Amino acid sequence: MTVKVGLEEMREFLDEVFPQVRGTFGIDRMDAGGVTMRLYNHDRHLRPGGTVSGPAMFMLADVAAYVATMMLVGKQALAVTTNCSIDFMRKPAAGVDLLAMAEVLKLGKALSVTDVRLYSEGMNAPVARATLTYSIPPAR
Amino acid sequence: MTVKVGLEEMREFLDEVFPQVRGTFGIDRMDAGGVTMRLYNHDRHLRPGGTVSGPAMFMLADVAAYVATMMLVGKQALAVTTNCSIDFMRKPAAGVDLLAMAEVLKLGKALSVTDVRLYSEGMNAPVARATLTYSIPPAR
Amino acid sequence: MTVKVGLEEMREFLDEVFPQVRGTFGIDRMDAGGVTMRLYNHDRHLRPGGTVSGPAMFMLADVAAYVATMMLVGKQALAVTTNCSIDFMRKPAAGVDLLAMAEVLKLGKALSVTDVRLYSEGMNAPVARATLTYSIPPAR
Amino acid sequence: MTVKVGLEEMREFLDEVFPQVRGTFGIDRMDAGGVTMRLYNHDRHLRPGGTVSGPAMFMLADVAAYVATMMLVGKQALAVTTNCSIDFMRKPAAGVDLLAMAEVLKLGKALSVTDVRLYSEGMNAPVARATLTYSIPPAR
Repeated sequence: MTVKVGLEEMREFLDEVFPQVRGTFGIDRMDAGGVTMRLYNHDRHLRPGGTVSGPAMFMLADVAAYVATMMLVGKQALAVTTNCSIDFMRKPAAGVDLLAMAEVLKLGKALSVTDVRLYSEGMNAPVARATLTYSIPPAR
Repeated sequence: MTVKVGLEEMREFLDEVFPQVRGTFGIDRMDAGGVTMRLYNHDRHLRPGGTVSGPAMFMLADVAAYVATMMLVGKQALAVTTNCSIDFMRKPAAGVDLLAMAEVLKLGKALSVTDVRLYSEGMNAPVARATLTYSIPPAR
Repeated sequence: MTVKVGLEEMREFLDEVFPQVRGTFGIDRMDAGGVTMRLYNHDRHLRPGGTVSGPAMFMLADVAAYVATMMLVGKQALAVTTNCSIDFMRKPAAGVDLLAMAEVLKLGKALSVTDVRLYSEGMNAPVARATLTYSIPPAR
Repeated sequence: MTVKVGLEEMREFLDEVFPQVRGTFGIDRMDAGGVTMRLYNHDRHLRPGGTVSGPAMFMLADVAAYVATMMLVGKQALAVTTNCSIDFMRKPAAGVDLLAMAEVLKLGKALSVTDVRLYSEGMNAPVARATLTYSIPPAR
């Protein structure tokens, strides 16, 4: 699968499409094998005890699957998530960023399916896994 | 199944356990048949176009399943989501609250399973559906 | 939503499309509100102890979602399941049929989403719940 | 994670616990990194056109997750599947075995979570992916 969007271009695209979350996410890596993104360790994503909340983990998985899909199909702001299954397996570590590794398993004409694993930075065991389906609008 | 927590008591419990989201959710109904909650139509949950974002829908489904479970087992702040599957089916309407109707399908010793349907207030067709599993820590 | 296929016509269609499972399933009810199907209590679907196996429960949920979708879009043998989430909640009762109640939550141009609950005949509490997405090929 | 059951011992255990499906599955590989199993290309698992049916794919994913879990916790016939999410991504090839690669992502005291990818033998792109949760009964 060929990468159609460069790293700098993708960062600008995310800021433009999701201005509300500007500064929330970073893109560490983006190549044919997949995407690594991070959720910065901000107060507003935390549960009591300092660990990342479930909705924040969902949000990171969702945006990582979006970036991994956009990278392959080109910038299509109107792609939408149609399905997500997520397993929360371990408590995230407090005080560190959350990382997402996303891999597109299927890229069809109308749908993409992406596997995502989430890790607390510096830990080996995943804190969560998710699979997301994106519906890709037909190019005009 | 017997309701173990009253409405006012549950509202106070939510504020205490999730102080970061105080004022975000309302509980409309809570009885043996289930729970109806609402996500107030706030700017910070919105995508461009004024509709509710996916992570905000996930958050509402998650908290509704939590309240529906707590109502039946008693207040156990340490219950955690272990699994969620969610289908996003329609674009939420702009400018209205999002409602969640949650029904506990199974209440075991260690796990609960809850079905949730999400609606834009005033609409008949659901915007999303979700099923959530909560792990319930053994009572001390 | 309008029903496009009659009960007798659907039974014949199922026998024609899935000849390997002829005699395995019955359709009890089929109307705008949904579909009730049954898996006959046959030896070959059983686990030791006489209860229905997980794959047999999946198969019933899948065929019930298929029938519920076909009823609304018309007979399209080429529709395929793209996603399923299923929760196994209770052990099915031994020696009775398994029932599925299926309700289409969304019928789009390319996808349907159907909720299914499974019951041991004569019991009130569901043994399983499932949600299935079908991809519907464009009509020629 | 340590492997507690040898390959020959696991084959005998499967035949003993699931006598109805004797001869249906093979175990190719079983080590700390995971398990590779195969569904033999039998007529009874096929749809018209010669490809493997959805329920047969579910069955293979389920048994592969079971074997991957049993390998790590020891033989516990009473473990049961509580949740599965599965994405069907491509049509399996006709006339070849179906392979499952299973990896346990979490092994807790009461639950395991296993990721499975399914391939038609000789093909690179996965035909399906699944995640299964097993409930593990407390050892006596």
